[in-house]
Amino acid sequence: MTDLHSRSLVIDALQCSDFNRELLLEAQRGGVTAISASSVLWENFRGGIDYVIMWKHKLAENADIAMPIRTPAEIKRAKTEGKVGIIFGWQNTSPVEDRLEYFAVFKDLGVNIMQLTYNTQNFFGAGYLEERDSGLTGFGREAVDAMADAGIMIDLSHVGIQTSLDTIAHSRKPVAITHCLPRGLRDVPRNKPDEVFRACAEKGGVIGTSLFAPGLARGNDARVADVIDAMEYTMDLVGEDHVAIGTDFNHNRTRPGPWLLWANKDKGTGRTLTEFGSAKITKPEGIRRNDEFPNLTAEMLRRGWSEARITKILGGNWMRLFAETWA
Amino acid sequence: MTDLHSRSLVIDALQCSDFNRELLLEAQRGGVTAISASSVLWENFRGGIDYVIMWKHKLAENADIAMPIRTPAEIKRAKTEGKVGIIFGWQNTSPVEDRLEYFAVFKDLGVNIMQLTYNTQNFFGAGYLEERDSGLTGFGREAVDAMADAGIMIDLSHVGIQTSLDTIAHSRKPVAITHCLPRGLRDVPRNKPDEVFRACAEKGGVIGTSLFAPGLARGNDARVADVIDAMEYTMDLVGEDHVAIGTDFNHNRTRPGPWLLWANKDKGTGRTLTEFGSAKITKPEGIRRNDEFPNLTAEMLRRGWSEARITKILGGNWMRLFAETWA
Repeated sequence: MTDLHSRSLVIDALQCSDFNRELLLEAQRGGVTAISASSVLWENFRGGIDYVIMWKHKLAENADIAMPIRTPAEIKRAKTEGKVGIIFGWQNTSPVEDRLEYFAVFKDLGVNIMQLTYNTQNFFGAGYLEERDSGLTGFGREAVDAMADAGIMIDLSHVGIQTSLDTIAHSRKPVAITHCLPRGLRDVPRNKPDEVFRACAEKGGVIGTSLFAPGLARGNDARVADVIDAMEYTMDLVGEDHVAIGTDFNHNRTRPGPWLLWANKDKGTGRTLTEFGSAKITKPEGIRRNDEFPNLTAEMLRRGWSEARITKILGGNWMRLFAETWA
Repeated sequence: MTDLHSRSLVIDALQCSDFNRELLLEAQRGGVTAISASSVLWENFRGGIDYVIMWKHKLAENADIAMPIRTPAEIKRAKTEGKVGIIFGWQNTSPVEDRLEYFAVFKDLGVNIMQLTYNTQNFFGAGYLEERDSGLTGFGREAVDAMADAGIMIDLSHVGIQTSLDTIAHSRKPVAITHCLPRGLRDVPRNKPDEVFRACAEKGGVIGTSLFAPGLARGNDARVADVIDAMEYTMDLVGEDHVAIGTDFNHNRTRPGPWLLWANKDKGTGRTLTEFGSAKITKPEGIRRNDEFPNLTAEMLRRGWSEARITKILGGNWMRLFAETWA
């Protein structure tokens, strides 16, 4: 591990891994300061509460190596203490159900990030897999306001293009695209066009480069260099203040297995949406595990990126956006 | 009351009245055979169950004058016994929440009619008050199939235009527009354009003429003749086999009062959607109460409508559609 990597705040803004002690130790070894543990996809209100309870237990059991993150200051403290910070972040607003007041309730319980919708239509807008994009609905505008009031960062990664653009335009705070690749490098639906990345950045937002191999130029043959290529593409588009990392790691989820099959059904029980639940999908060689994070930094250094740029990409940009959106 | 009226099956496919014994007696006096009691607007799953329980009690308490309706045959029995039949029908699918299997559960509990969405966006499609219409979503297509399988008649009265057209096209059974007026007579958002009425009728569906005064040509000054004008407009468009009645009566709901104010908020707790919750809205003079139904029939006779036509409009058309959709 380079000195720069071990000195830096390293933040992964999206994993849906099923965490256990082994995985937390792996992240610790990889110099990862904080991870958004984003396993909520279709859960309703009580499922959202269950997530909070699950993490209360896991964090109590692993208090020597991990800690909950409520504020950017706590991410710095995790760094100082050498612990892995766990950010409560969700890939859907589904636990809010039909009550805008629940945003503040979940914020009180520690939830700092929510994706507006996961893959398909909800009350607030459309996911990227809908044929027609509703855009941000009337209730969606209220939700965006309520999330800003509560201090919950909005994520647009799986959100439809029109709904994403509407959300960026309506929101009074910058928003995130925590884990997404550029359609300019590979034209698949899950990747986003330049227009959305630009709008996100112009508003002050941050785009986390994902490790989702089917979205990278070389697909399942991708290596670390391909990930850094994607970062450079996005950086050329929006500048180094608006690019970061969101791995989309899903460790301890059997493929194919019940969790991924549930994830790939609309609302968890409807029709199967994509082949991702059962298809063979790897992460790029060299960055398949949490202890391989230093390989990203090494490739950045190899390309001659400045130290200032690298620290922004590794975590500095997320720190700025967290400060702006969690307040 | 004319002999024709008292001989006919008279069906009102939408009331959101808060029923009590007095109101049931009034309907009995008005020669009303069956009413869809459609008070569910934003309720979640347990709210849907509460509706069923509420009616179980009310029908037990009023078993001498009212009875639950599960089948068209039971409507005929209500007529024979001189009782008011209560159809369990809802103005939203909200109690189904995110589980398609709940359609069959509620059908088992007696719910025979559901509107796809009420005024705004839900998982399945858009209400008429959304600026952009999502059309029928992917999950919406599954819902339409599930409702056909379960035997629940789909209502599109408050549904957006694109979502309505998509639903009619996708559905393998005819659908209803239980309470709606033609935009051709008055261009307000809640009224529907000819195109939607035509598509509904071509599929075998039925359009219930509503008594919602703001949608009638003369607004709050409307009288019985204006209602019959609206029926004639719709009949000229789609023929006498596809027109019927859905009063939209909301007796025992204080205006302004808590129920109507709740009804007019998105999901019951969001922003206020229209002025209808507090504005002065009357029903047309001469057809403001359930015991005034004979005035509709009298006006039809005055215009020289045939007995065959009148019996279709009063209830025959609903009977045919119920038979086709409830099976």
